[in-house]
Amino acid sequence: MAAVYVSDAQHNRNIFFETQPQAVRLYLLYNHWLLVVLLYFFIIVNLLLAVVEQPALLPVPTWASMLVELVCLSVFSGRLVHYAKVIPRDKFWKDPKNLCILVILLLTLVDMIIYGALKATDIYSVRWSRVFRPLLLVNFTEGRQLRRAFRSIRNALPQILSVFLLFIFSILIFSLMALKLFGKRGLKTNSGKPYFTNFLEIVFDLYVLVTTANSPDIMMPAYNASSFFAVFFVIFILINTYIFMSVFLAVVYNNYKKYLKEEVRQLVRTKRHKMVRAFAILQERREGLEEPVVSHASWNQLVRLVQADLSHAHRELLWSVADQHNQGYIGKLAFVQLADLLNIQVIAVKSRPHPLQRWSPSLYLSTPSRWLCRAVQHRVFVMVYDVIILVNAVFIGLDEEDPLIRNSEWFFLALYLLEILLKLYAMEPRAFYSRHNFWNWFDTIIIVSALVATIINTAMTSVGGYSSRQILDIVFTLRVLRLIRVVDSIKRFRVIINTLIKIGPTMLTFAQLIIVVYYIFAMVGMELFQGRIQFFDSDSPGKHSCGNPALQDSSFAQLNYCKNNFNNVVSSFILLVELTVVNQDDLGPPNLVDAMETTDNNLRTGEPQTRLMFKISSTRYRTVDSLLQRMFEADLDPEDFGGEDDPEESSNFNFSNPVFSSI
Amino acid sequence: MAAVYVSDAQHNRNIFFETQPQAVRLYLLYNHWLLVVLLYFFIIVNLLLAVVEQPALLPVPTWASMLVELVCLSVFSGRLVHYAKVIPRDKFWKDPKNLCILVILLLTLVDMIIYGALKATDIYSVRWSRVFRPLLLVNFTEGRQLRRAFRSIRNALPQILSVFLLFIFSILIFSLMALKLFGKRGLKTNSGKPYFTNFLEIVFDLYVLVTTANSPDIMMPAYNASSFFAVFFVIFILINTYIFMSVFLAVVYNNYKKYLKEEVRQLVRTKRHKMVRAFAILQERREGLEEPVVSHASWNQLVRLVQADLSHAHRELLWSVADQHNQGYIGKLAFVQLADLLNIQVIAVKSRPHPLQRWSPSLYLSTPSRWLCRAVQHRVFVMVYDVIILVNAVFIGLDEEDPLIRNSEWFFLALYLLEILLKLYAMEPRAFYSRHNFWNWFDTIIIVSALVATIINTAMTSVGGYSSRQILDIVFTLRVLRLIRVVDSIKRFRVIINTLIKIGPTMLTFAQLIIVVYYIFAMVGMELFQGRIQFFDSDSPGKHSCGNPALQDSSFAQLNYCKNNFNNVVSSFILLVELTVVNQDDLGPPNLVDAMETTDNNLRTGEPQTRLMFKISSTRYRTVDSLLQRMFEADLDPEDFGGEDDPEESSNFNFSNPVFSSI
Repeated sequence: MAAVYVSDAQHNRNIFFETQPQAVRLYLLYNHWLLVVLLYFFIIVNLLLAVVEQPALLPVPTWASMLVELVCLSVFSGRLVHYAKVIPRDKFWKDPKNLCILVILLLTLVDMIIYGALKATDIYSVRWSRVFRPLLLVNFTEGRQLRRAFRSIRNALPQILSVFLLFIFSILIFSLMALKLFGKRGLKTNSGKPYFTNFLEIVFDLYVLVTTANSPDIMMPAYNASSFFAVFFVIFILINTYIFMSVFLAVVYNNYKKYLKEEVRQLVRTKRHKMVRAFAILQERREGLEEPVVSHASWNQLVRLVQADLSHAHRELLWSVADQHNQGYIGKLAFVQLADLLNIQVIAVKSRPHPLQRWSPSLYLSTPSRWLCRAVQHRVFVMVYDVIILVNAVFIGLDEEDPLIRNSEWFFLALYLLEILLKLYAMEPRAFYSRHNFWNWFDTIIIVSALVATIINTAMTSVGGYSSRQILDIVFTLRVLRLIRVVDSIKRFRVIINTLIKIGPTMLTFAQLIIVVYYIFAMVGMELFQGRIQFFDSDSPGKHSCGNPALQDSSFAQLNYCKNNFNNVVSSFILLVELTVVNQDDLGPPNLVDAMETTDNNLRTGEPQTRLMFKISSTRYRTVDSLLQRMFEADLDPEDFGGEDDPEESSNFNFSNPVFSSI
Repeated sequence: MAAVYVSDAQHNRNIFFETQPQAVRLYLLYNHWLLVVLLYFFIIVNLLLAVVEQPALLPVPTWASMLVELVCLSVFSGRLVHYAKVIPRDKFWKDPKNLCILVILLLTLVDMIIYGALKATDIYSVRWSRVFRPLLLVNFTEGRQLRRAFRSIRNALPQILSVFLLFIFSILIFSLMALKLFGKRGLKTNSGKPYFTNFLEIVFDLYVLVTTANSPDIMMPAYNASSFFAVFFVIFILINTYIFMSVFLAVVYNNYKKYLKEEVRQLVRTKRHKMVRAFAILQERREGLEEPVVSHASWNQLVRLVQADLSHAHRELLWSVADQHNQGYIGKLAFVQLADLLNIQVIAVKSRPHPLQRWSPSLYLSTPSRWLCRAVQHRVFVMVYDVIILVNAVFIGLDEEDPLIRNSEWFFLALYLLEILLKLYAMEPRAFYSRHNFWNWFDTIIIVSALVATIINTAMTSVGGYSSRQILDIVFTLRVLRLIRVVDSIKRFRVIINTLIKIGPTMLTFAQLIIVVYYIFAMVGMELFQGRIQFFDSDSPGKHSCGNPALQDSSFAQLNYCKNNFNNVVSSFILLVELTVVNQDDLGPPNLVDAMETTDNNLRTGEPQTRLMFKISSTRYRTVDSLLQRMFEADLDPEDFGGEDDPEESSNFNFSNPVFSSI
């Protein structure tokens, strides 16, 4: 029971499960990684169904796609029933997200039946329930971060709204002024139409000017009439594009931060509550001590249950952090920190001997071998390979029709392979390929794939005299990707890249958010506009009108935009990306600002070590939640973390993340 | 002497002047507001000379403009000599900004002589020293904030540079990949040119794609060839437009904040040092006290010298804040706070009787008169006028050819005038027009100007049957501006507007910065491109080529862009604004974020008061420097403020801004 509480605190789960042994076992099953992965798999399958459904990219019979959807639905229902059995009945029905899932599942079922029936009688019908699919991603318990982001955005809406209204008011005032100033002057736009005579058109034109899409065209007729009118447009852009957009950014950033902080505070409070409950289960009274404590033995048993893969040494390390005075027991304060301690990623750098050393110690430890190992780890070795990469870049840029250049590829591939082999010779392979060595993995995968692709390509060319365009594309891409390696050997670049990799998980939440929004728009767009615009590959007669008489000789068709349509889910997504880009709606994740502040302590591993060592990894916080807690740590009021069960003790607790420096 | 130190601390001046009486008197003269205003006036005149110099907007003889410039130069030289007399000789020559001013003045003189000589012999020459003019704005002591902004930007450059290099590297890698993927496919762009075959052209195209200016055109040929290629462009935009631009923003924001914090810390340290010096002059020993103190009498004398316009009551208020225990003397800690206390704007709300009450008390205090006063201050009165404004907006939008609508203007003007008169009747006029009542001033100015302009316009129409377009423009503009009033009666809007007004001074620094940059670019642009593109008002033959054969039938000429040229200083500035807007280089002042956090405690004045009261104005910090100090207050380490003279005492000093709540 205590292990379940600690595990929940560690992973910031907040499910109020029942405490009978049967329910706890069900709850453990519910949190099993296999079931969670399965759920995500089926959510993705469910979302991907749009590829094979009408309007389809890969058409399959309707019954097949509906069968897959039924399987997904039953998996979701099963998950929901499982959840209902874990938590108390009344809590289940009070939670809006469960009701939301239930309604979505029912609506989807109804829609499928109607669609199937109408399809059987050959009547056209719409699969409207597809719009709800991404909401499943949001509402299943596992989408916690996503839900938090949504909630923060929703809470910020009222303040954003008042700025938005003021912004609209400003545009209306400017439009009225434009109507009065320019409407009676008889000016003409470049296409000969009357300039600024209709109020609603002015409002629209000025709104577009805020996005700067029609600048400076919208200004030119007035500017040509008198230089003074430029002042009107400059003030308009200053107020509406610069000042208002900055205020929007400020309000969104401020509110988002405020609500996120509140959510994180709630999270910390819940975590502490769980840990206190676990403590209450394990606590024992000792003579001469006023406060109850937890002994080393029960602590050990607990940690072994919570995280079975922890090595004995790692567990001892954690204990020595908790029990700083070596008393053999810890109090409540030290115990509560366990959830955070478990989240700190510690890399055990064991000095395993190199396999070659075990195989033939005399050879591996001989002078030339040692000299080679030192040479590989020398700065000059890295620089030589940087130069090789740059020469390679020049060769890639040159025309590969020349046989000399084409064959040079083999030479470079051999050099890169040699580099990896030399490094593997000098360093212990398991340390070289440990989980946090992103660049070693990157190198090996890129170069082995490039080798395989090049061999296949050469084989096909020599056999059939024909080289596949697809394989060539892959070969070229891999060849160019190899050059990215240079980044790793320049320290300043490595810092930036590592920072970006570190904040990756946070950005993934936003990516999910965007996918949810895009998916809904794509579904609606496909039902509304599907087939209106057609793309013709060859020079067919419809090419100049995108298959739509209304677009005959329009600039849309002339610019060859016909493929920007809603005819299938892929082109819908690409079109939505294009619309996002043109509108320049980038607010930029504010987390970047804080994340850039963390100093980079990327550790080079593989240096020969003589004893067992622990290093705190640079990606210290494995989960997004821990990262968030750390971000707001300075802002969180320690007084505010009082647990619900013993408020008189709350002021003793300080929830700063534990530090290893004390050892 | 002490008063000079306190005054310097209050205004954050940091000039190391000599302490002889003669030098101090010179220093006081140097800081006199009249001389500072004069200096700014001549700097503006010097900058505005570009309007009358070749290529001129308003041509004047060369000798006239050069005469004015000579006057400016002599004023600047005089200021510099004055400064040299105030500070020690060696300090003067060590300060790079003095040397910079000296060099600029000498170069300008040399340039003027060369230009004059060449002009006299009719040889074309360039006034190259004009580029340096805005640097005078930066380098004179009064441009302190501007210099600080420049310094912060310069200090952030190295970090920005490394991100920029990585960004360039990313574009090069993508370009190489694009060359390999698309170069050999024989694709054509929309205009029939080969697509992505030249490496340098690809680099340029992809760089433009980062600004999204050529999206989606640049993608269409590849996308039309295969949907998969869209992935390349989506990843490119994701990495370079979104991620890299966010990293740029984060790095700039972070660094700017960091260096600004350091500068503000320096500022606070200097301020404290000055205050400690002033204390050392005034201090006296009292029996039974270990520490020296300053008596009420000498404090009073000091404050009267520093700020002569402070009322006796205000001074007593400040003293009661400093001397909280009513001891008749204050210690060092309380004394040092004086500089901040003086910067807190306190509005004395005196209940002066209404002039009409003094004139005829029985009439003004009669029941109908009192009822009227209450009615004017009632919520309904405000709402009635909001409705009137909205009706007025509709009338303005309608066609003013209709005589009914044209004459309605008189009716609305009368209503607005009546509103002001009623308010003046109900409230004390001096309170109504006090300095912080922005909206009352706004109302009165707009409505009186509208009245004057409308009368002039009607008079001209009725006399000559002719209505001047310029006067009409002014009338219309004022009429529309009147509508902004609605904003003030909606509380949420008022908060936003007041916040913007509050951070106005900070934004002004950035405006100066932008003007400096624009001015330099305009000067260089005018010398390089002047006359290359001509604007023709009527349908002259040159209209379709902007007077330049190279532009014959170009899209630039077709879009009527001819007036976007460098032919004079005004069109240069407008062109530079257009370029800024199209490139969307808006980072948004980060101060907005913090400034939005301050709650708005806008005070309605004019409510009848029965006793003398003090209110802390919402614009609590009169100077940008105080605002900055408040912004970073939480971040500044109180331990770090140790004075140079008595380090052992430094930990006692805590520089939080004084609060009035203690009284």
